[in-house]
Amino acid sequence: MEPAVKYTLIKKEKHTGARLGKLETPHGTFETPMFMPVGTEASVKNMAPEDLEKIGASIILANTYHLWLRPGEDIVKEAGGLHKFMNWDKGILTDSGGFQVFSLANTRDITEAGVHFKNHLNGRREFLSPEKAIKIENYLGPDIMMSLDECPPFFESYDYIKKSVARTSRWAERGLEAHRNPDWQALFGIVQGAGFEDLRKQSAADLTSMDFPGYSIGGLSVGESKEEMNHVLDFTAPLLPENKPRYLMGVGSTDALIDGAIRGIDMFDCVLPTRIARNGTCMTTKGRLVVKNAKYARDFRPIDEDCDCYVCRNYSRAYIRHLINANELFGTHLTSYHNLYYLLNLMKGVRQAIRDDNLLEFRENVFEEYGLNEANARNF
Amino acid sequence: MEPAVKYTLIKKEKHTGARLGKLETPHGTFETPMFMPVGTEASVKNMAPEDLEKIGASIILANTYHLWLRPGEDIVKEAGGLHKFMNWDKGILTDSGGFQVFSLANTRDITEAGVHFKNHLNGRREFLSPEKAIKIENYLGPDIMMSLDECPPFFESYDYIKKSVARTSRWAERGLEAHRNPDWQALFGIVQGAGFEDLRKQSAADLTSMDFPGYSIGGLSVGESKEEMNHVLDFTAPLLPENKPRYLMGVGSTDALIDGAIRGIDMFDCVLPTRIARNGTCMTTKGRLVVKNAKYARDFRPIDEDCDCYVCRNYSRAYIRHLINANELFGTHLTSYHNLYYLLNLMKGVRQAIRDDNLLEFRENVFEEYGLNEANARNF
Ligand SMILES: [Zn+2]
Ligand SMILES: [Zn+2]
Repeated sequence: MEPAVKYTLIKKEKHTGARLGKLETPHGTFETPMFMPVGTEASVKNMAPEDLEKIGASIILANTYHLWLRPGEDIVKEAGGLHKFMNWDKGILTDSGGFQVFSLANTRDITEAGVHFKNHLNGRREFLSPEKAIKIENYLGPDIMMSLDECPPFFESYDYIKKSVARTSRWAERGLEAHRNPDWQALFGIVQGAGFEDLRKQSAADLTSMDFPGYSIGGLSVGESKEEMNHVLDFTAPLLPENKPRYLMGVGSTDALIDGAIRGIDMFDCVLPTRIARNGTCMTTKGRLVVKNAKYARDFRPIDEDCDCYVCRNYSRAYIRHLINANELFGTHLTSYHNLYYLLNLMKGVRQAIRDDNLLEFRENVFEEYGLNEANARNF
Repeated sequence: MEPAVKYTLIKKEKHTGARLGKLETPHGTFETPMFMPVGTEASVKNMAPEDLEKIGASIILANTYHLWLRPGEDIVKEAGGLHKFMNWDKGILTDSGGFQVFSLANTRDITEAGVHFKNHLNGRREFLSPEKAIKIENYLGPDIMMSLDECPPFFESYDYIKKSVARTSRWAERGLEAHRNPDWQALFGIVQGAGFEDLRKQSAADLTSMDFPGYSIGGLSVGESKEEMNHVLDFTAPLLPENKPRYLMGVGSTDALIDGAIRGIDMFDCVLPTRIARNGTCMTTKGRLVVKNAKYARDFRPIDEDCDCYVCRNYSRAYIRHLINANELFGTHLTSYHNLYYLLNLMKGVRQAIRDDNLLEFRENVFEEYGLNEANARNF
């Protein structure tokens, strides 16, 4: 049987080994490295599917945990699956629910069977097992799904992480077993192991032996420094097969995207661009711009003078600031649109730099202009 | 000098006298009767200008009071006027600020010179005079502007309304005098007089003697019954010149739009469609539909099975209900879009019925299907 998604490595960047590739999915073929906007509740906040298409989004994320609890995976299935439910006919990826159980839910109790927890909406007791996660994702119907993993804090003890990695591997095997639609939904295994090289090695060895059609790197961007994250990627990415896609979960800042691509990552996602947009914070080629600040009241320039997106071609900082001050939803639509465009455009630049074998130069230029080379630089 | 907007009566409906007309403005020529979406803070809530164009909006409203207080009319002027500020190149109409002063602001003090009040944002003392209203509107730069009027409650005493009408007429004269851009901004006078026929007559006589390029009917849809409103329109509309547009302020329910057109009204506006949309309430050909109700959880039909709008072609009640429950902004975007489309489409039907001389039959069919003929019908 052909796997549901197929990765082809097009070329490696000469100096870094960064990968230009293409990912064939049941809903289209897309270039990597790619950034995937997050649509937690089956909607990328404040964006229409048509907007996402216009800015060149190819795969978007939805959250299994949230959709399980509301509206319920059975309703999404009855609707004909997530693509039809939310009117998006390109790629969809769902996470396993694990990250939310470990970050949002209260009083969780982890056993070999799965996780008991109280859900964050109404405090009701719930149970999530590897099989249950797969069943929910089979019902939701994304192109790419994740197996249930435990997401311990980065700075947990070696002993704890070791046990956790072993359990995540056993859960991955149970997930593979439970998966009903491998012909049209690709299940990825998630490599854990925090900052411990031998545990990452163990995790990768366990998972690659099960032959998943793609691999995620989890447990990063959870409080560790950028240096620590890059260090983990340095020794983890090479453990993964060249002919499968590699997805670094929860990462979406300018520097981390470029540094991740340099280390051989193909897919990224993050709520950052839309979350900060709702506070009126924009990502621009010149760094962060907090458009609601008073100094933009009479600034009729676009958010980013070097951006050619719909927002920057038509609206001024003064207007967007006014809308956000007046709690007009269209204001945060505009900042969300621009931020997502900025990141998708950045990844376009990364792919071109891989083609041109000048990714390190590209990195240097972007970092310099963004202000990331300054002391105490804000990394988003 | 040519007036900034010019109305041409195309035809009258045979049985009712309802007017099919065209309104030429500096930003396009539009058919009447028309419904104008409201963009209080220089944005029709939750809608992009492109959305408004797609649904066929021709003139939109912005509120002088709100834009004066935030961001300030000088900033809008510096931006190049409202059209440029908000990226809308069709028609814009602003009210005078009077209605908000009399409904939102506190401790107002009405004198011959103008109105003292505390603004609703920060309680600061403000003063709005006829000249000030005009100056703000000249700065904002809409195609159509209103002269400052007093909006007393419908059920004030005859003596009070009589004095108020006389003052509104004097204010209208002062506004005309203060107006700096009559060649590209059309100033409308506002006929007041509550439910008193002789006072409406007096008000209309005062204002028509000043030769405004258009006339508004104010002081309606403020608590009186539909019958009372229609009765006032019955005796007020005929007082206005045939060759000028007539604008009924603040009216936007299905029945009132049709009944207003029947009585010779050309222009309507109302916050209703977008306001109820934010609560998940939709206007449909079959009446109100509160899409967030539990009974729609598994209803995969569109909001309105007889609607061909973007929303009804692509999204289900179940999805929209989910989004609204999850506080996803895209949910109220969809309900806002549909509701505005519904009203603009209703007006298209009204115009066709005038062409076809069957407006009363059209009214009967719409009322019957909407459920407006039932006892205790909800009129929106
Ligand atoms: Zn932009
Ligand atoms: Zn519709």
